[in-house]
Amino acid sequence: MADETLPPETWQWLAQASTATVTTQLFKRGLRRMHMVGVRPVSRRRRLMGEALTLRYIPAREDLDVVEVFQNPEHPQRRAIELARPGQVLVIDARGDTRAASAGHILATRLCQRGAAGLVTDGALRDMPAIAEMNFAVYAAAASPAMNLTVHHAVDIGVPIGCGGVPVFPGDVVLGDEEAVVVIPRHLAPEVARDAAEQERLEAFILAKVEGGAPLPGTYPPDAQTLEEYRAWVVARERRPGAPGPA
Amino acid sequence: MADETLPPETWQWLAQASTATVTTQLFKRGLRRMHMVGVRPVSRRRRLMGEALTLRYIPAREDLDVVEVFQNPEHPQRRAIELARPGQVLVIDARGDTRAASAGHILATRLCQRGAAGLVTDGALRDMPAIAEMNFAVYAAAASPAMNLTVHHAVDIGVPIGCGGVPVFPGDVVLGDEEAVVVIPRHLAPEVARDAAEQERLEAFILAKVEGGAPLPGTYPPDAQTLEEYRAWVVARERRPGAPGPA
Amino acid sequence: MADETLPPETWQWLAQASTATVTTQLFKRGLRRMHMVGVRPVSRRRRLMGEALTLRYIPAREDLDVVEVFQNPEHPQRRAIELARPGQVLVIDARGDTRAASAGHILATRLCQRGAAGLVTDGALRDMPAIAEMNFAVYAAAASPAMNLTVHHAVDIGVPIGCGGVPVFPGDVVLGDEEAVVVIPRHLAPEVARDAAEQERLEAFILAKVEGGAPLPGTYPPDAQTLEEYRAWVVARERRPGAPGPA
Amino acid sequence: MADETLPPETWQWLAQASTATVTTQLFKRGLRRMHMVGVRPVSRRRRLMGEALTLRYIPAREDLDVVEVFQNPEHPQRRAIELARPGQVLVIDARGDTRAASAGHILATRLCQRGAAGLVTDGALRDMPAIAEMNFAVYAAAASPAMNLTVHHAVDIGVPIGCGGVPVFPGDVVLGDEEAVVVIPRHLAPEVARDAAEQERLEAFILAKVEGGAPLPGTYPPDAQTLEEYRAWVVARERRPGAPGPA
Amino acid sequence: MADETLPPETWQWLAQASTATVTTQLFKRGLRRMHMVGVRPVSRRRRLMGEALTLRYIPAREDLDVVEVFQNPEHPQRRAIELARPGQVLVIDARGDTRAASAGHILATRLCQRGAAGLVTDGALRDMPAIAEMNFAVYAAAASPAMNLTVHHAVDIGVPIGCGGVPVFPGDVVLGDEEAVVVIPRHLAPEVARDAAEQERLEAFILAKVEGGAPLPGTYPPDAQTLEEYRAWVVARERRPGAPGPA
Amino acid sequence: MADETLPPETWQWLAQASTATVTTQLFKRGLRRMHMVGVRPVSRRRRLMGEALTLRYIPAREDLDVVEVFQNPEHPQRRAIELARPGQVLVIDARGDTRAASAGHILATRLCQRGAAGLVTDGALRDMPAIAEMNFAVYAAAASPAMNLTVHHAVDIGVPIGCGGVPVFPGDVVLGDEEAVVVIPRHLAPEVARDAAEQERLEAFILAKVEGGAPLPGTYPPDAQTLEEYRAWVVARERRPGAPGPA
Repeated sequence: MADETLPPETWQWLAQASTATVTTQLFKRGLRRMHMVGVRPVSRRRRLMGEALTLRYIPAREDLDVVEVFQNPEHPQRRAIELARPGQVLVIDARGDTRAASAGHILATRLCQRGAAGLVTDGALRDMPAIAEMNFAVYAAAASPAMNLTVHHAVDIGVPIGCGGVPVFPGDVVLGDEEAVVVIPRHLAPEVARDAAEQERLEAFILAKVEGGAPLPGTYPPDAQTLEEYRAWVVARERRPGAPGPA
Repeated sequence: MADETLPPETWQWLAQASTATVTTQLFKRGLRRMHMVGVRPVSRRRRLMGEALTLRYIPAREDLDVVEVFQNPEHPQRRAIELARPGQVLVIDARGDTRAASAGHILATRLCQRGAAGLVTDGALRDMPAIAEMNFAVYAAAASPAMNLTVHHAVDIGVPIGCGGVPVFPGDVVLGDEEAVVVIPRHLAPEVARDAAEQERLEAFILAKVEGGAPLPGTYPPDAQTLEEYRAWVVARERRPGAPGPA
Repeated sequence: MADETLPPETWQWLAQASTATVTTQLFKRGLRRMHMVGVRPVSRRRRLMGEALTLRYIPAREDLDVVEVFQNPEHPQRRAIELARPGQVLVIDARGDTRAASAGHILATRLCQRGAAGLVTDGALRDMPAIAEMNFAVYAAAASPAMNLTVHHAVDIGVPIGCGGVPVFPGDVVLGDEEAVVVIPRHLAPEVARDAAEQERLEAFILAKVEGGAPLPGTYPPDAQTLEEYRAWVVARERRPGAPGPA
Repeated sequence: MADETLPPETWQWLAQASTATVTTQLFKRGLRRMHMVGVRPVSRRRRLMGEALTLRYIPAREDLDVVEVFQNPEHPQRRAIELARPGQVLVIDARGDTRAASAGHILATRLCQRGAAGLVTDGALRDMPAIAEMNFAVYAAAASPAMNLTVHHAVDIGVPIGCGGVPVFPGDVVLGDEEAVVVIPRHLAPEVARDAAEQERLEAFILAKVEGGAPLPGTYPPDAQTLEEYRAWVVARERRPGAPGPA
Repeated sequence: MADETLPPETWQWLAQASTATVTTQLFKRGLRRMHMVGVRPVSRRRRLMGEALTLRYIPAREDLDVVEVFQNPEHPQRRAIELARPGQVLVIDARGDTRAASAGHILATRLCQRGAAGLVTDGALRDMPAIAEMNFAVYAAAASPAMNLTVHHAVDIGVPIGCGGVPVFPGDVVLGDEEAVVVIPRHLAPEVARDAAEQERLEAFILAKVEGGAPLPGTYPPDAQTLEEYRAWVVARERRPGAPGPA
Repeated sequence: MADETLPPETWQWLAQASTATVTTQLFKRGLRRMHMVGVRPVSRRRRLMGEALTLRYIPAREDLDVVEVFQNPEHPQRRAIELARPGQVLVIDARGDTRAASAGHILATRLCQRGAAGLVTDGALRDMPAIAEMNFAVYAAAASPAMNLTVHHAVDIGVPIGCGGVPVFPGDVVLGDEEAVVVIPRHLAPEVARDAAEQERLEAFILAKVEGGAPLPGTYPPDAQTLEEYRAWVVARERRPGAPGPA
């Protein structure tokens, strides 16, 4: 669903943007709650970018959620992982329940092997010491050694879910960094990405001025004169190859 | 789905059982978490019994969840109510989020008009003063004057959900009283109902003895002699018309 | 500050509106969080309407907050009460801390004697059994027998505060009913009041139709035909003296 | 342990004091946290006074906490009830865990039969509709239909415990009203009781003045003149038979 | 109590097992809640294994919990540390209250000097910067600079307690790693240890296959063919000296 | 306000004291709650010492808190930063609300440029990856990518506030380390600093003894003999240049 529809520059721009900047762009469009609350990076790789593949859990029932269910290859948790395609992020709605794991090291490894872009849950993960060492972008709310069956029953793949207080529709763009995970509604991704890259460039300029001793008034936010300086700086900078920003 | 499959005596027996007693019967079958946490009766009618019709919410998104959506008669919240059949309980998965209402007085009134058995949400309701006066079994976690669009986006009808920490599958039996709401997996309902009615009868006998000064040892739980007395009491009692218990 | 500026019909209209209806009117104007969370009616009188007089607490410090401070008539808690004018609602920012009381029965009695419209705190109150019997509109988050000095230090009167998660500016309109307390920014009060009264009238009409068996589609929200019926009903109704709604 | 040691007037004075007043007296003696947090009256009788008999729970373990344990009359939960003597209050340390009941209707009935003064738990109770009707002072944090075995394992009787955040030593005086439960260390009970009764009498006088229109300065707290009036009022009042206060 | 009763291979096997694996083995035996919630490793040494020595706290009382109490060498907190024997883990029930420390650097140092295996509390610790550098296994829920007397009163040594939501009996086996602390009932330790070591070996094999590109079906859980491969791998591996697993 | 009033040795002594030690000194003076709860170091520099400059937030209102407000150089958030003087710590009362940032990297950079000693908030910060790298003492309760306008409205500078549950008056001494932030009332700072430095020296001596195998009784707390040894050690140590402690 992803690469054919979203233009490549969307991804290039997003690759330059922090979740803070994207959150500001969403705020400007009236979306105030697209950043997950309580979901943090837990692996060595702390930059996540991809399209949402969703998995939904409900509370476990002791007679249904027994160890034997995993013998069934169609069990939704296992099936979701085998369905994941390159560039997708598996996003799990665990209802914020961290008393047991949403998944563990072997499943994260398989997801990584399939080329997925990452794993996000608002629940816990187990085998955290091993996951912490993975070069795969993994985000979770906590660590718990308990099997997912202890409190979770996997039911659905590919439906709209909530995760960390955010609505996630299949195909939405998921961006993560050291600070947070933010979800960009798919239809807004191109314009948000473009404006976020521009904002990053402007803020890099402002930061340099502040580091040089400039006071906030006139600088942040920039007044007409600062913006003029900025535009000159951009022109000069774009002459260098590989310069960031929405060229 | 309901009346044709569950035998009538299941309902007769359940009508005599408290949620505490049913919870004990579920515990004896290994199910320890079938009672909703934080969901309380809020209307004048405080006895609920029916089959689950489920409705699922995810977090709202400000661009999708605008007042105009209700112009669409297929909006899942409105559609669920118009689908409800006599004897069904509308159970809403509001993710325990009580910052806005799951529904209000007009919708509860329509649901009641359609012959539904009740309304349960692990979120809030609005227009609580009016709902409190209804002769319709309504359970919720809180009151909130805010429209559901403020934090909720309705997505699905008739799928397995979580509500108050309990898994709810469409068609499960939902029982509520002054104390709690408990969910009985449909296939267990007949046997749980029968044993619950029997337990109620036995505990009525035990309570009478304790009120008469009997000590706990030998009485609660009953020893062989107390059980013998109980059986005699049951025989005597059943000669009277209208006596409760699983005849 | 109140009666001379806000037109009398604003108060007449508000007197007909529930907090749920006012919250909807605020939502339509982009204000989604003006209802206090966790603050409930605790006295016999459960209808509150007035203008905010604010009082701010910070955490107590054991060396400053000793019983002797009340010897000083300028202590902000006592001073605020003696400053209250008829029609004002004393709104206390207790940081949501319910481990000790914000005030008690004697202070609530004095506030009532001064003609104030009510008392609201996002903390606790003490002497709740007595306050519950008062014919004075009192709202709080909990009961606590502990003196306010145990956790609170009163600092400011008449400054903008937060209460129950809502910003409250001095002079804002405070409305409470059985369900909630909602704050209306002063400059919006006239239009919100007018539209709320109109919404109440329309919803009374819709409710009557639903109680009569009308399905939701076409009725709630009303389509063109239902609106026409409504207008006819309004005309007929207004011929009666004392009919509510924004005449 | 109780009646022989504590002088009868201690109980007479306490019978006139609210938990708010006793909490103030404890505050004056440097004890700021002797009122239970989150524990509320749940039965018809809402005045509790007695000496603590303690019962301690730890988390349940599924292999130990099975229905069969109650066959053993020495099970600590059952044993504690059969040990209770007239005037004692059974105080249960349930670690604030309300996911299952600490006890239910039959046990509360037996406790009442044994002449106990009341039942307090910082956990939940089951069979709340029946307990609500009892003429026995019962306090709890919540209702839960689940058996105590679901989350609790009873271990100890008669040891110091925590309940509602308060340290409770066997023999401490437990006082409850509509507002709260407060624990008075046994050795402080006589003086706290005396001063609380006096404070109640003074505040009754002050309240009457405030109801009559007196301003706070000079009245609350009372200045020299108000105190003189008060003393005259006390003298006049004591001439009447049955007048309260520490005679 | 420890070394003479538990066979040495139990400890050897446990030394190879993660808390996640042990939690799965306990789940298979019906024990779903033996892992502490909210308790995390805080020192450099993050592998804990030993037998529980328990210490119980209740809430502090300001008149009892004054600095002078530590002059008494029999104060339970200090006494527990001087009682600790090599191989024991001091497990403190701090009721999950992290507002003050359960212990600090000097006490942890003394415990380490006595040869104890570690320190676990569901409360906080103070002097965390120094504790973080210790080569001693320490687990806690938080850091707090406040003395334990601020909120804790130590009462009992060697009694059953709750810690992190888990029942802990003296002599139970306590296992900790980077992820969690799990408690193994003493009588189950030998069989849980054996099966956990075997599970670790099998999962190492499965992980290697998944890292090599194997899909989940047939591999995790393993089907008959994968199990046959595994057995061959075990045979080949056991020919090497020092190979892990329950030989 | 600072350097002219507080004697230089106060700062020298505080520079040697941990927050744990200062908290003990405050406890000895009856102040039990001067350490912030939930506020943690987030930058590379983890030693904070300075005088409080306070900034107060209340909940945001969507019509007031729009991006354009920052065009006004008098916006309190921006103004507070431009007012900060060398040695001051900007302490923000964010009501513990971490759903949005209190500030971000550019503002922290400007504050650092102005010579401020640090930044403390009981809310969140954004741009955490960049702030984590700053050589500026920054403390916060969480990371959030959302702009402060999303939930905060800045109102006041230089008034008493609450932060992390602690009362903070302008000019109070703020001390932070790896463990916590503690606030010392300004008038107590000299004596608390002196006694804290002395306590640090004594505990260094005790720790060395415990590391050498000394038992707790007689050592911690020290008895007469240990204190004598300590005094000899102090004398010997003070002959060395640069020795810490309140010379």
